[in-house]
Formats: sequence, structure tokens, C-alpha cells
Amino acid sequence: MKNLYALALLGMSFLNQAANDTVVKPAPNDIELPAGYQDWRVISSSHRTDHHSLRVILGNDIAVKAARAEKTNPWPEGSILAKMVWKEGELETWKAAIVPEKFVHAEFMIKDSKKYSKTGGWGFARWLGLEQKPFGNDENFVQGCFSCHTPVKDNDWVFTIPSKLPTSIKH
Amino acid sequence: MKNLYALALLGMSFLNQAANDTVVKPAPNDIELPAGYQDWRVISSSHRTDHHSLRVILGNDIAVKAARAEKTNPWPEGSILAKMVWKEGELETWKAAIVPEKFVHAEFMIKDSKKYSKTGGWGFARWLGLEQKPFGNDENFVQGCFSCHTPVKDNDWVFTIPSKLPTSIKH
Repeated sequence: MKNLYALALLGMSFLNQAANDTVVKPAPNDIELPAGYQDWRVISSSHRTDHHSLRVILGNDIAVKAARAEKTNPWPEGSILAKMVWKEGELETWKAAIVPEKFVHAEFMIKDSKKYSKTGGWGFARWLGLEQKPFGNDENFVQGCFSCHTPVKDNDWVFTIPSKLPTSIKH
Repeated sequence: MKNLYALALLGMSFLNQAANDTVVKPAPNDIELPAGYQDWRVISSSHRTDHHSLRVILGNDIAVKAARAEKTNPWPEGSILAKMVWKEGELETWKAAIVPEKFVHAEFMIKDSKKYSKTGGWGFARWLGLEQKPFGNDENFVQGCFSCHTPVKDNDWVFTIPSKLPTSIKH
């Protein structure tokens, strides 16, 4: 009886998970959306006035460690950079402030020199909107990403320059 | 002998810590700099065109949980909002992108309705530059923060609107 109850609880927990989580498909080049990237630490931000969007760039632990040590050319193997992009909007209560509005997409660069040797050692992928629909009709979408990054070939193909942050503190 | 060696290692580790960490003084209203805020999760970002600065707004766990649940009016007790501010600069490799340059300051709002009842239930504090020098000559500096936040009295005194993010995912 006790076991049956435990089994029922387990089943309910699976059902809950299925109900709450969104199923996200891999990108056409088979890259899976890095789970939990929304919780990663900040590396930088930007405002693209041409694209009318605000961006926050996050990194996985390997990338953040490299960014803080200012050792990012090249970025270490295993680094993942996540760029969250929103359309720009005006803050009603402070008109001179431009703030994120609609979520546009999250895009990623994954450093694996061997696996992605044809694209500068980086795997590229993007998921659109809050529903995170994979971007690209087939695996050739990557050529668009890669060619756009050509101006930063000498910066290990990365536009982002990690923002300076105060170091750890002691009271 | 083994114990002496362990003791020596321990001593060295303390010395290293003392050498690497910056000593940060509390604000004139006795608020201490929240340790490790640089590692907190993102709530939003902004570009203040009047102040020529880019901002990333982070939150402690209580604040991030409330932001993601869209329960921020009022923010729950114990919420801390951290705003990191950089002067705006131009990205050399993509001229239309405005990016963080010099670190200006980190500023905080700490929700404690009882302790900070005179300023809308929020404690305010700011630390300047990478060296994190406390802002304000005496505790009256808070009046400047508070009066500036008057336009958002109806939004629990907070300008920041949490950015929309995709929810957790399942492959």
C-alpha cells in the first residue's frame, strides 16, 4: 500500500513536469537548447540601435570564469554564450529609458574546436520567441551566423566584450 | 608535522583571501554591500539615454522568484534589487551597437517594510566605481534616491519592469 502511494506520487510528479515545461525542439544542426540558461550569470549587455533591440549576454560557468579572468581570446573549450534579445521599448515612468519589451529570441555560441571546426570552433543556434521555436530551415542556417561574425574573426569570432565588474568583496 | 603543514596551508589561504578581496565600507545608512550580487540572476536591462549609461538589473533569489511569477507589486519582503551601471560606449566591430564601458556604480533596493517604513519599505544604497566607494556624505543621501522614485510610487517604488523570459524547458 505504501509503495503504491509512493508510485502514485511519482506519477503525479511526472505529469506535473509534463504540464509545466515547454517542449523545445533542437536546432536544425542538432544543437539542443542549453537547459536553464536563463539562470546563468551576466557577461555583458548591449543596445542595438539598428535592430532596435536590447540584449543581455550570459555565460555558462566556463565562460563566466574566463570572462572574469579576462582570458577570452580564445574562449576556453566548453564555453557557452547565451544572448537574450528583446525589442526595445520606452519606460513609461522614465521616458529617456529604453527597456526590453517583447522577447525576440535567445541565441547561442558553443565552443568545441573539433566538432565545429568549420565555423571557427563555435556551434551556432537560435530559438525564436517565448515558445522557443528553432531558427533555420536546415543546417545551412549556420552560414548566415558565421558570415555575420566575420568582422570579429580576430576576437575568436565573438562580438561581446565582457563588461568590467567589481571583484569579490570583503566587509 | 602533518598538522603544522595543514596549519601553514590554512594560513596561506587566509593571506590569499586578504590579498584578493577588496574591503568595501557600508553605506552611510549602515547598509552593507550585498556580497556576491555580481552572480545574481537577471531581471531586466535598460539604456538610459539621458544618463548615457547601460544597466543590468539583477535580483536575489526572493526577487527573481517574484519577478518570474509576475508578483512584484508589492515585491516580497527580503527582495533585493541590484542595478549595475556602465557608461555607454560604441562597439568598434559593430558601430550601431551601444555597449557597456566604464563601470559607474552598483545600486540597491532592499525590501524591509518595517525597517525602511519611512522610504516606502525600501532601503537604498549605492557604491561607486570598481573600488565600490559608498555613495553619500551622511544618511540623508537616501532622500535623493527616494524622491527620484516618486513617479513609481504605485509600482512599489520600483522603475524596473521584469523582462519576459521563456519558462523552463524540456527537450
